[in-house]
Amino acid sequence: MFVPQDPDFAAKTRASFDRQAIMKTMGVEMTSVEAGRCELVMPFHPDFTQQHGYLHAGAVTTVADSAAGYAAFTLMPANSSVLSIEFKQNLLSPAAGEALIARGEVVRAGRTITVVEARAFMRKDGAEKLIGIMVATMMCMHGRSDAQG
Amino acid sequence: MFVPQDPDFAAKTRASFDRQAIMKTMGVEMTSVEAGRCELVMPFHPDFTQQHGYLHAGAVTTVADSAAGYAAFTLMPANSSVLSIEFKQNLLSPAAGEALIARGEVVRAGRTITVVEARAFMRKDGAEKLIGIMVATMMCMHGRSDAQG
Amino acid sequence: MFVPQDPDFAAKTRASFDRQAIMKTMGVEMTSVEAGRCELVMPFHPDFTQQHGYLHAGAVTTVADSAAGYAAFTLMPANSSVLSIEFKQNLLSPAAGEALIARGEVVRAGRTITVVEARAFMRKDGAEKLIGIMVATMMCMHGRSDAQG
Amino acid sequence: MFVPQDPDFAAKTRASFDRQAIMKTMGVEMTSVEAGRCELVMPFHPDFTQQHGYLHAGAVTTVADSAAGYAAFTLMPANSSVLSIEFKQNLLSPAAGEALIARGEVVRAGRTITVVEARAFMRKDGAEKLIGIMVATMMCMHGRSDAQG
Repeated sequence: MFVPQDPDFAAKTRASFDRQAIMKTMGVEMTSVEAGRCELVMPFHPDFTQQHGYLHAGAVTTVADSAAGYAAFTLMPANSSVLSIEFKQNLLSPAAGEALIARGEVVRAGRTITVVEARAFMRKDGAEKLIGIMVATMMCMHGRSDAQG
Repeated sequence: MFVPQDPDFAAKTRASFDRQAIMKTMGVEMTSVEAGRCELVMPFHPDFTQQHGYLHAGAVTTVADSAAGYAAFTLMPANSSVLSIEFKQNLLSPAAGEALIARGEVVRAGRTITVVEARAFMRKDGAEKLIGIMVATMMCMHGRSDAQG
Repeated sequence: MFVPQDPDFAAKTRASFDRQAIMKTMGVEMTSVEAGRCELVMPFHPDFTQQHGYLHAGAVTTVADSAAGYAAFTLMPANSSVLSIEFKQNLLSPAAGEALIARGEVVRAGRTITVVEARAFMRKDGAEKLIGIMVATMMCMHGRSDAQG
Repeated sequence: MFVPQDPDFAAKTRASFDRQAIMKTMGVEMTSVEAGRCELVMPFHPDFTQQHGYLHAGAVTTVADSAAGYAAFTLMPANSSVLSIEFKQNLLSPAAGEALIARGEVVRAGRTITVVEARAFMRKDGAEKLIGIMVATMMCMHGRSDAQG
């Protein structure tokens, strides 16, 4: 469906993800990266919970935002970087279970602005339950390599 | 401007905040709590950064969501708890500096639904810069004490 | 996928739609209503355009909001009404063409809160183009018939 | 607070507003335009109501979006135009009363992206009631005059 401009999109996306210290802190792994799509998985950890023992809405959003941003980044040209302009996160159910899975998928890729949807699921006893939906606006910073910072 | 229904609003809000493990993990402190308002501060820490060394948008959102939720919670009756329904976070500038400050302020408090605005700032060299704006929808769960979970 | 609580969901939804004066003013028709889904179509009309001759973002949003609200309403019990709590509308492309089509589809239906996605398309020369995406939070007002007002 | 780049910002903003056919259709007037701010007023009219006789959430959003867009446009350079990227509208109370007032105010103006807050009020018996809050992302299209389309 989407044709990446950068043939090395998967490698550059994984390299950028590896530079996000917060992903390591939260134990998040990039389990899949395709043109216009990205999946991240975070095992449940009590360090990131809210007052009732579920993952905090902000933790869900953090993983969803990275999944959305990297889904967008796969379609951006080499020598550019990705920036989150805004996102809205709806929380549908408590984030209870063994792992959080966030799947970002590009809705529309433009030269400057890319809109992405990211759905968040909790895996529990082998089943997945939808617990969040995000729509995010991502911006491409042309001429500014992601590796430069 | 706002009249709290629960005279112990400050104590219950601080107690709930203390039960959010993620706040401790991120080093966030509740620096102020008033009727309809809440301020949280998080010293910058490289463990919560994105690929360019700034605080991750999700970290900003996590602190803003808690500030928004607890601003709403101050106005809710005793024996209730607060739930984030949704929020939109706009990112205005890179989250660079010594500390992140999030200030939640209730826009409208209803029986079930409370709408809150939370502005996020970075403190740098003694000055504050606005770096994010969130509008959040919070829900009151009546008859379900926050302490029960 | 969704089981409606009210067997007369289609009739009550069409009846409520017919009471929305703005839909008549804008020339919108309800072309489909199913459990958890609703489609509305508005022929392009210059009375609802912005400064460049496209349909105004607010016109797109109006039709999308009604499509979202009525998708949610199909799953609500008899003797209730639906209320828009909030929605975010992303605009993906100019709303140019012969007709605007908005399709609402429930993402998660709860007792009080229902989350809906509505995608907006423009039909032009027989083809449809995605021009907008909305995620909306709808509330069920129990015990308050939609016909009562 | 804001310094406009175009000394003719008020005239160009009013001229663009006058080209929005939907504003005329809905009876909206631009009652104020300043650097970074814009106020629009729409007398209540039953043609734009929902099923309970209040102004439709989409009508409120339409006026709020134009107020937000034109607040942003005042700060944009000559020979540019403004585009709504996205907005979230929270609905706080039914839109009942004699007139809808929308006030847009820039939160942060950037070269490409400007973020605006627009609050919507209903005037009733001489008093104003806050009924909606929007945060919108606006984009500046450089080198494309608004008058050209």
